[in-house]
Amino acid sequence: MTDPRALRIALNGVTGRMGYTQHFTRSLLPIRAEGGVPLEDGSRRPVEFVLVGRNEAKLRQLAARHDVAEYTTDLDGVIADPRTDVVFDAALTGLRPAALTKAMRAGKAIYTEKPTAETVAAAIELAQIQRETGVTAGVVHDKLYLPGLVKLRRLVDEGFFGRLLSFRIDFGYWVFEGEVQPSQRPSWNYRREAGGSMVTDMYSHWNYVMEGIVGPVRDLYTQAVTHIPQRWDERGQPYQATADDAAYGIFTLQTPSGQAVTAQINSSWCVRVHRADLVTFQLDGTLGSAYATLHDCVAQPRAITPKAIWNPDQPNTIPFLEQWADVPANADLDNGFKTQWIEFLGDVVAGRPHRFDLLSAARGAQLADLALKSSATGRRLDVPEIVL
Amino acid sequence: MTDPRALRIALNGVTGRMGYTQHFTRSLLPIRAEGGVPLEDGSRRPVEFVLVGRNEAKLRQLAARHDVAEYTTDLDGVIADPRTDVVFDAALTGLRPAALTKAMRAGKAIYTEKPTAETVAAAIELAQIQRETGVTAGVVHDKLYLPGLVKLRRLVDEGFFGRLLSFRIDFGYWVFEGEVQPSQRPSWNYRREAGGSMVTDMYSHWNYVMEGIVGPVRDLYTQAVTHIPQRWDERGQPYQATADDAAYGIFTLQTPSGQAVTAQINSSWCVRVHRADLVTFQLDGTLGSAYATLHDCVAQPRAITPKAIWNPDQPNTIPFLEQWADVPANADLDNGFKTQWIEFLGDVVAGRPHRFDLLSAARGAQLADLALKSSATGRRLDVPEIVL
Amino acid sequence: MTDPRALRIALNGVTGRMGYTQHFTRSLLPIRAEGGVPLEDGSRRPVEFVLVGRNEAKLRQLAARHDVAEYTTDLDGVIADPRTDVVFDAALTGLRPAALTKAMRAGKAIYTEKPTAETVAAAIELAQIQRETGVTAGVVHDKLYLPGLVKLRRLVDEGFFGRLLSFRIDFGYWVFEGEVQPSQRPSWNYRREAGGSMVTDMYSHWNYVMEGIVGPVRDLYTQAVTHIPQRWDERGQPYQATADDAAYGIFTLQTPSGQAVTAQINSSWCVRVHRADLVTFQLDGTLGSAYATLHDCVAQPRAITPKAIWNPDQPNTIPFLEQWADVPANADLDNGFKTQWIEFLGDVVAGRPHRFDLLSAARGAQLADLALKSSATGRRLDVPEIVL
Amino acid sequence: MTDPRALRIALNGVTGRMGYTQHFTRSLLPIRAEGGVPLEDGSRRPVEFVLVGRNEAKLRQLAARHDVAEYTTDLDGVIADPRTDVVFDAALTGLRPAALTKAMRAGKAIYTEKPTAETVAAAIELAQIQRETGVTAGVVHDKLYLPGLVKLRRLVDEGFFGRLLSFRIDFGYWVFEGEVQPSQRPSWNYRREAGGSMVTDMYSHWNYVMEGIVGPVRDLYTQAVTHIPQRWDERGQPYQATADDAAYGIFTLQTPSGQAVTAQINSSWCVRVHRADLVTFQLDGTLGSAYATLHDCVAQPRAITPKAIWNPDQPNTIPFLEQWADVPANADLDNGFKTQWIEFLGDVVAGRPHRFDLLSAARGAQLADLALKSSATGRRLDVPEIVL
Repeated sequence: MTDPRALRIALNGVTGRMGYTQHFTRSLLPIRAEGGVPLEDGSRRPVEFVLVGRNEAKLRQLAARHDVAEYTTDLDGVIADPRTDVVFDAALTGLRPAALTKAMRAGKAIYTEKPTAETVAAAIELAQIQRETGVTAGVVHDKLYLPGLVKLRRLVDEGFFGRLLSFRIDFGYWVFEGEVQPSQRPSWNYRREAGGSMVTDMYSHWNYVMEGIVGPVRDLYTQAVTHIPQRWDERGQPYQATADDAAYGIFTLQTPSGQAVTAQINSSWCVRVHRADLVTFQLDGTLGSAYATLHDCVAQPRAITPKAIWNPDQPNTIPFLEQWADVPANADLDNGFKTQWIEFLGDVVAGRPHRFDLLSAARGAQLADLALKSSATGRRLDVPEIVL
Repeated sequence: MTDPRALRIALNGVTGRMGYTQHFTRSLLPIRAEGGVPLEDGSRRPVEFVLVGRNEAKLRQLAARHDVAEYTTDLDGVIADPRTDVVFDAALTGLRPAALTKAMRAGKAIYTEKPTAETVAAAIELAQIQRETGVTAGVVHDKLYLPGLVKLRRLVDEGFFGRLLSFRIDFGYWVFEGEVQPSQRPSWNYRREAGGSMVTDMYSHWNYVMEGIVGPVRDLYTQAVTHIPQRWDERGQPYQATADDAAYGIFTLQTPSGQAVTAQINSSWCVRVHRADLVTFQLDGTLGSAYATLHDCVAQPRAITPKAIWNPDQPNTIPFLEQWADVPANADLDNGFKTQWIEFLGDVVAGRPHRFDLLSAARGAQLADLALKSSATGRRLDVPEIVL
Repeated sequence: MTDPRALRIALNGVTGRMGYTQHFTRSLLPIRAEGGVPLEDGSRRPVEFVLVGRNEAKLRQLAARHDVAEYTTDLDGVIADPRTDVVFDAALTGLRPAALTKAMRAGKAIYTEKPTAETVAAAIELAQIQRETGVTAGVVHDKLYLPGLVKLRRLVDEGFFGRLLSFRIDFGYWVFEGEVQPSQRPSWNYRREAGGSMVTDMYSHWNYVMEGIVGPVRDLYTQAVTHIPQRWDERGQPYQATADDAAYGIFTLQTPSGQAVTAQINSSWCVRVHRADLVTFQLDGTLGSAYATLHDCVAQPRAITPKAIWNPDQPNTIPFLEQWADVPANADLDNGFKTQWIEFLGDVVAGRPHRFDLLSAARGAQLADLALKSSATGRRLDVPEIVL
Repeated sequence: MTDPRALRIALNGVTGRMGYTQHFTRSLLPIRAEGGVPLEDGSRRPVEFVLVGRNEAKLRQLAARHDVAEYTTDLDGVIADPRTDVVFDAALTGLRPAALTKAMRAGKAIYTEKPTAETVAAAIELAQIQRETGVTAGVVHDKLYLPGLVKLRRLVDEGFFGRLLSFRIDFGYWVFEGEVQPSQRPSWNYRREAGGSMVTDMYSHWNYVMEGIVGPVRDLYTQAVTHIPQRWDERGQPYQATADDAAYGIFTLQTPSGQAVTAQINSSWCVRVHRADLVTFQLDGTLGSAYATLHDCVAQPRAITPKAIWNPDQPNTIPFLEQWADVPANADLDNGFKTQWIEFLGDVVAGRPHRFDLLSAARGAQLADLALKSSATGRRLDVPEIVL
């Protein structure tokens, strides 16, 4: 009974690194090769692509290499084309609101990289347009689809934690200053005037991770710091690092049942990694705790919780790290980007909203804004609910 | 050239658990057995003790068992006795300010357990009396003398870190609620009205650790939380837990050279331990970082710092935890209590101040007070310098 | 406020192996050495002993060796003595009902080895006398006080299992027939006419284990078998083994909330041990499972339960045995006999019933009786409740 | 002397998963590639296939891919074809009796998946037709050809066990209910009305395993239980689980020499696996014991049997699990399906009966029927011999 016609997806900006690698080659091409999007009734809906971009030569080459029949530099034309079902945008952030707005007004489902806009106001406006047009809209929330967080979320769903108490995220690594060893990140990341900032970069991620694992953020405090004020750029020239390169945050979250959970997140580009991964997550509840990296997760239920005694003058003899058990995947946990594409396209076919939408993206931008304000004023701030 | 007369130390309150185990049997008796306090000129100054307390029978028994010639229930008499050199106080906090004041006024060196008083004002007053009388006064700061922190401090002294950037302390473990498994801490710890509170309990420690490793605290933000509102007491009866059982803090410290360092400290009795020890310390600087437990320390200099790339969809392949090298003791790191006793008595003999004095204790009490105020108001607070 | 007078305990039969080792030297002498039974108010009630037996020389020697002031061969006299508080019986089963009856009629608290009597009717009669006299009476249920079962029970109390589903006990080892290698058990164990039988020997234990961990037995099926019909006795003579040497049982238990749980117990003296211990226990519930030996316990919550696929032609690749986490003791789990003595004597001092009483012992005897009947008739039998 | 003509095998239903993977690609194609069935005289008899099914397109594709010359949708025609030597049936159970009957009446050797029919009566009728027609007939009994059970059987044949005493099978794993984590088995397995049931599913397997390793079943008792009454189906909808999801069975087997052996089998979809494999087998005899998984087997002869002492208050110190020695394969233990095919085809060529025939399949169905009756009535039931 399913529509036999291929779902036609316009791909704007898949010539960039992220768009090409994650979205095109690791997600969409495999979905096409498997016969299309798997639907709930067990059938598959085929997909076909139109490549959109500014560099025709690059598009032609890409289309040929991956057996894509159509490509164009005319984004507006593709949006207006009645055959187009979905518009995906991974192009420049600055041009994004205009493109997404046109697509939604044309009744197309949209899927987009984040940030959705450069200001909170613009991000909220996009959410309003989504609401008016009623189209299915999705925003890439890839971290939530990584195995470590999928397992963590499954434990929440199974009630493993009992009442949730606290959530901690420890993120960071050492980004070289660039003087002797070249830096592994672009210099604009460290210049406020160029849009750089740890808070701006990571808080939209932390927002959907907190929302997706525990629940929405109700208040926050953040101290944003520039630990290293001078760095060296891509040409080896010293420059003033004007953006925050670390952020220390404390948040109050609210679970669906109304309980308050404290989250504490450290994000730093000036820390050396004494952890199993660049980011780790610990969630504690009355009945158990879990500790996840992006790809793994271990858990400790109350039953195997040691009764430790605080006795500092005696060397510790409890093997704490051995008292956590590996959480099995129990499923084929595919690439996170591909998994979200499948979920999103399934929502498009079913004509229903996608769970990570433009409003969620707007809340992420709002959190970053408030965090910088909290840091500047030294105050804990409430997070007002965005009402459309 | 050294004074051949034995240093006479009045020990008030060593019949209690802490006083008896840590101070008397693990510190003072070994010092006496080794021939006295080792001095800088290589000689030793003998020590002798007068036991002071309220239970004469207990004192007599203790004196006999450990071959101590004198004991008394008359604290005032001992203080007034011109033969007394040092008065040590490990008795009840409530009686402490009066006893210490009398001893200092009588020109005795004093050494005391903490807290030195029940209020910040009283703690400051003691520091003022010390200043007026000019006696040598010391406060037990045992954690700083534990091997892990001794090594961390040594790395600071050696300039290992370059410019210090950030300091993190992760403290906590699961304290059972007492319903099925009995709790491993007394119930008063969880009742505000009985003096319980994570902040009150641990912030005086964190203050001297931050001061002793990096430098004094200039401002702070704290969120104190009661994660578990009901617990069961020693008789198995449920009670309302009114005190904070976790505290999330962010601090700005100042190094001797005037640099700002951000400290972030999580303290919780509601967390399961996914760490090597109940407390861990990480200190990061431009040239290197170190990670310590109470008894061990590992370091990562710039030379072996990996250049990690943030690429969440790929499983991490860098063995981060193997890239830290063990910091050797290079010395016999003795029991922390005994080490501080030796340092303190050396200061007494030399007639100079001890580095952890009554003012430092007053600052610890001040930090706890400000932290609770910060939590209540949601504001970052400056820490005013205590001027005597 | 507690009674300062020593609790006076008459010990009948502690010259035997079990009575001497477990009860006297590992339980009662340590309790005396520690200053008596620890009571709930933190104080201790001293204990004193009167040794009772038939061999005066042996009693004298024992009394002298362990510094016991009194001994006697006059059991009736001790029972009648108003100073006697508790009568303990570890002497011959045949004489037990008479001794216990006299002691209870004399108003003494009693504590006894099991079986309490040679028939179910006699065991029930003892329970009736207990009820009439109102004395505190206890029966040794030592297995429930072993660390493995203490942990298992704690997990039940904490709700670890969710709804309980099934319980399995695997007990047994190879008892040599005695022809070449001498047997490690006495020959009467294998002769029905001498009271031997696996069912008779072990079902009273399994009854209190099932009751104590899950709940009472509601129905049972048992197949009792004599696998090895000829054995060799202590003098190397062959004899006919007329008693069952293995029993295969299936039971329906009822939890306090009324849920049915299936128990399956294999007991055999003709099996070679491919297990970690001579007996193992597995308890499965909706939210988790645990596997215990007498001294250890591991658990697997739902969170770390693997999703295994039944695919027999492929070698298994899931490391099942590594997916169980060790349950920590979180307490000093003392010798099981001593622990029960302390609990029992605490009940005596408080004047309240002991949780493992003569009725519980009667149910154990009833279970063994019914099991033999089930085996003979090939029928599942209901376990009628014993009403006094 | 061997017939040079290829043995012509009609394959009905190898388009299904089991038929295709196990029988066609892992068994028959390798046999063809190796030059045919190895015969006892060292020669090989070539094989050729005719694919039979209902979907001509699928058959054509399969035939082309695997280089099979003939395929047809006309099952009757193939059966009637005088060139056909063997008819294999892996198609729907409902159509099986009719197809097998026709083939046997046409004088063809038959080989078939199980169950052979939907009722015991129909299964017995097939066995009668086999007897009347005298054709060679085989039923897939793949588990007996797995390495673990091949080794176990070899030990029986070698007299390793002495007199056999007892046999235990422990089978099961946790099948997720489907609420949060999707179930790994189809929902019809848990609905009686759809043919689901642990007993129905596994007892036919256990029957041939018991027969093949020890000997036929003489009586049985079974308690079939539905531990988990609600599950969630493939669409995430809750449903009532009406079939038994666990079965606890006790059996009396009879060895060829007439000795009784007790078998005890637990089968459960509600148990967490604290074993090396999803199913384990233990066989005990007077001279030795063995413990097998599907792919491995260890043994303990009398010579290395420890003399364990039952002393529950002492932690066990005997390393029981290390006291078993690995049983070597001493042969290339091939895929179990292929091994049985070779044996069956050898029987066809030799014109003799196959050891696992239609009567054995009928006994498997009979055992499941009796077990459900035993569970309902709570009685041990004799297993009447099926007389043709």
